[in-house]
Amino acid sequence: MNAALDYARAHGEQFVDQLNDLLRIPSISTDSQYDGDVRQAAEWLRSDLERIGMPRAELMETPGHPIVYAERIEDPALPTVLIYGHYDVQPPDPLELWESPPFEPVIRDGVLYARGTADDKGQLFMHVKAIEAYLATEGALPVNLKIMLEGEEESGSTSLVPFIEQHQDLLAADTVLISDTALFAPGVPSLVYGLRGMAYVEVTLTGPNRDLHSGVYGGAVENPINALCRLIAGAHDEQHRITIPGFYDHVRDLTEEEREGYRKLPFDEADWKEEIGVEHTKTEAGYTMLEGTSARPTLDVNGIWGGYTGEGAKTVLPAKAHAKISCRLVPDQTPDEITEKLRRYFEANTPETMTLTFKNLHGGHGALIDTSAPAMQAAAKAMQGVFGREPLFTREGGSIPVVADFKRILGLDSVMMGFSLDSDAIHSPNEHFALERFHQGIEASIRFMDAYAQQTNGTAA
Amino acid sequence: MNAALDYARAHGEQFVDQLNDLLRIPSISTDSQYDGDVRQAAEWLRSDLERIGMPRAELMETPGHPIVYAERIEDPALPTVLIYGHYDVQPPDPLELWESPPFEPVIRDGVLYARGTADDKGQLFMHVKAIEAYLATEGALPVNLKIMLEGEEESGSTSLVPFIEQHQDLLAADTVLISDTALFAPGVPSLVYGLRGMAYVEVTLTGPNRDLHSGVYGGAVENPINALCRLIAGAHDEQHRITIPGFYDHVRDLTEEEREGYRKLPFDEADWKEEIGVEHTKTEAGYTMLEGTSARPTLDVNGIWGGYTGEGAKTVLPAKAHAKISCRLVPDQTPDEITEKLRRYFEANTPETMTLTFKNLHGGHGALIDTSAPAMQAAAKAMQGVFGREPLFTREGGSIPVVADFKRILGLDSVMMGFSLDSDAIHSPNEHFALERFHQGIEASIRFMDAYAQQTNGTAA
Repeated sequence: MNAALDYARAHGEQFVDQLNDLLRIPSISTDSQYDGDVRQAAEWLRSDLERIGMPRAELMETPGHPIVYAERIEDPALPTVLIYGHYDVQPPDPLELWESPPFEPVIRDGVLYARGTADDKGQLFMHVKAIEAYLATEGALPVNLKIMLEGEEESGSTSLVPFIEQHQDLLAADTVLISDTALFAPGVPSLVYGLRGMAYVEVTLTGPNRDLHSGVYGGAVENPINALCRLIAGAHDEQHRITIPGFYDHVRDLTEEEREGYRKLPFDEADWKEEIGVEHTKTEAGYTMLEGTSARPTLDVNGIWGGYTGEGAKTVLPAKAHAKISCRLVPDQTPDEITEKLRRYFEANTPETMTLTFKNLHGGHGALIDTSAPAMQAAAKAMQGVFGREPLFTREGGSIPVVADFKRILGLDSVMMGFSLDSDAIHSPNEHFALERFHQGIEASIRFMDAYAQQTNGTAA
Repeated sequence: MNAALDYARAHGEQFVDQLNDLLRIPSISTDSQYDGDVRQAAEWLRSDLERIGMPRAELMETPGHPIVYAERIEDPALPTVLIYGHYDVQPPDPLELWESPPFEPVIRDGVLYARGTADDKGQLFMHVKAIEAYLATEGALPVNLKIMLEGEEESGSTSLVPFIEQHQDLLAADTVLISDTALFAPGVPSLVYGLRGMAYVEVTLTGPNRDLHSGVYGGAVENPINALCRLIAGAHDEQHRITIPGFYDHVRDLTEEEREGYRKLPFDEADWKEEIGVEHTKTEAGYTMLEGTSARPTLDVNGIWGGYTGEGAKTVLPAKAHAKISCRLVPDQTPDEITEKLRRYFEANTPETMTLTFKNLHGGHGALIDTSAPAMQAAAKAMQGVFGREPLFTREGGSIPVVADFKRILGLDSVMMGFSLDSDAIHSPNEHFALERFHQGIEASIRFMDAYAQQTNGTAA
């Protein structure tokens, strides 16, 4: 492994030059006029994977953009790592806010600026270069390796789930490794072990058969907006706990060890508040803000509408009121369970003056990955090797659908070992990625392969 | 008076022919391409008023459409009646739903079909023809008479209040008489003695400085929509009473006599519900539906909006939530008082995580007219004479701004003696007015002038 690390250090500049070639290809997946560029980026990666020594490296067609698939099976007895990444990028608009053109990478003060540097070309390329370093120095990898790079992540990953479902044997592995998340804070090694899931519904209350005059009917016809507000208000108590019956039945509470982990996180509450312009927060009683945003479930109205919403005053007593409502879920809540409990709550509390329409819009499973599992321990060891200190294990409040998909379809947990920062401006003008983190990522990937082989005693699960 | 009544009966067909000439003029005030027609209708009425014997009959210019003003002062010692009406009409759209063209009046089964038959050309013309009948037979009126007909009622009456304010001396009178309301039910003589007022506000709660990702921030940043729903839900208790502190302080409760009057009203609750498609109603505890819709105050959300309201699921934690909220007021509540109490309620209950923006959009005073006043007694006597039975006194749930304006600016109560029906399709295709009611209205107007002179002993107040 040390030879591989030396090789990576010695070839650092060359790796950056190669990455710049990839960054110059505007592989914008949401705009069909760039379809040729998306395919060119895929072919560029396939070619590089072949060149560095992956015996199988091909484009696999989908109804949308191709998936780059490569593998190197050293020995069926060795554990297998499936690396996931995406080679497509967000559109660069608004162009006028870029300090240098989005597809002409430049380095300023050790930071590489271009669309895709952090999300996700720069991060997926860390693994490609780690493989190159290993193969160039050792002639073999310490693990079997499969790499799957999609070209539709920024446009909804439409082809991904069918692809995984159709290629379960091909993708069989012992762990997934993804570098598409952020470090908790600059210079702070961290690994994400928890993600929240989601249950997203739309409710409509219908009262009279048409909008009525509030003067003529107000006082006898119950107002659907007032009624919907009552139902929404009734979903929380004064402790900001959710009152939907059974909502917390399957919530796996934080362990004391996890809470201790939260306390260790470097977190500047004042900065956090200032950035979003709030003076006071509101979290479920008994939990800290960070716990509330990542380890506790929520119920938020994402949108509400009904009646007259134009200028001035119109005295309508509306026929309907609508709300989009979503719950962030934590292990072991499931989207089906919570959607059903929401449905029962709204059904039970809809007044006799109304009819309820309840639509299940979207659901997603959360994830909680055992930090003592070999792959997580290997990642921790790799981060320790790179940063000289133990990484923090963190939970994120959002969802990463592909992590739930890998778990559901392939039964695999994902190691989320990302090197970007929340401040890297992904999806925004002037996206960037510090070269130091690019090199740290290559080193972490080399160290991960080595540590994972050791953790598993070189044996597949 | 009997000669006048005979004259009106003898000239009934001729009056209808004249009305048809007026109905043929498409005086649509909201659409400037009809400006010429609006003026033509005004001139037509001015000319007819002059012809029947009003010494003063002129168009008075405003920044918008002209006001037709006519007067006949018999004797300064006599009481003066100010008749109000409007000669403009609603647009006729959707045209394809009319069984006969909107500006080509036709009679089918004793019912006159055309835009403006009931609202308000047909009703204002009843008074013009009553005056004609009186003057043609008696040579004089039993009261002094002023008549003011506006041409902007269907487009917001923009010029009316400034006109009344600028011409207070000209418009000085003892009572206002308006025929622009409906009978309580077919064949049921009734007079409106109460109208509700209004306080209309818009509230906005602002949380974070931008829309946030509900996964990243949900659980620590309070959601403005959830918070607004809590404030709205908290404005009613389970008895459907309004909980805004002090809200009922100045409510004049119904007298036992009034409640007895309500019980006498012919009201088919099943029909009423079926027409608007509701199976159950909700009224403040202790009051009937009719009391709830006309004699009790309300608080209704007229519109609500915030967050994502498009197709599908978007996981936004919105920065803002908005609602338009109005209260229908009863005597002796005032718009200023209730607006201030609403403001205090929202200020006191806005959580520390939010800022409140509170806008007063619109207010209007209610009206409760003393049924024992000479003008109301004269109207009751007139209705009794026409229908052969005592009229019912009723309260309406809506507001008629001009009634509040006459009270505020001129200090005058209005007699609302209308002959349309809720089923006359005003503002809709196939607007109509039964000729029987047109003739009853002429007779009632003649009888009103006579009775009012007697009630006041022929003396101005």
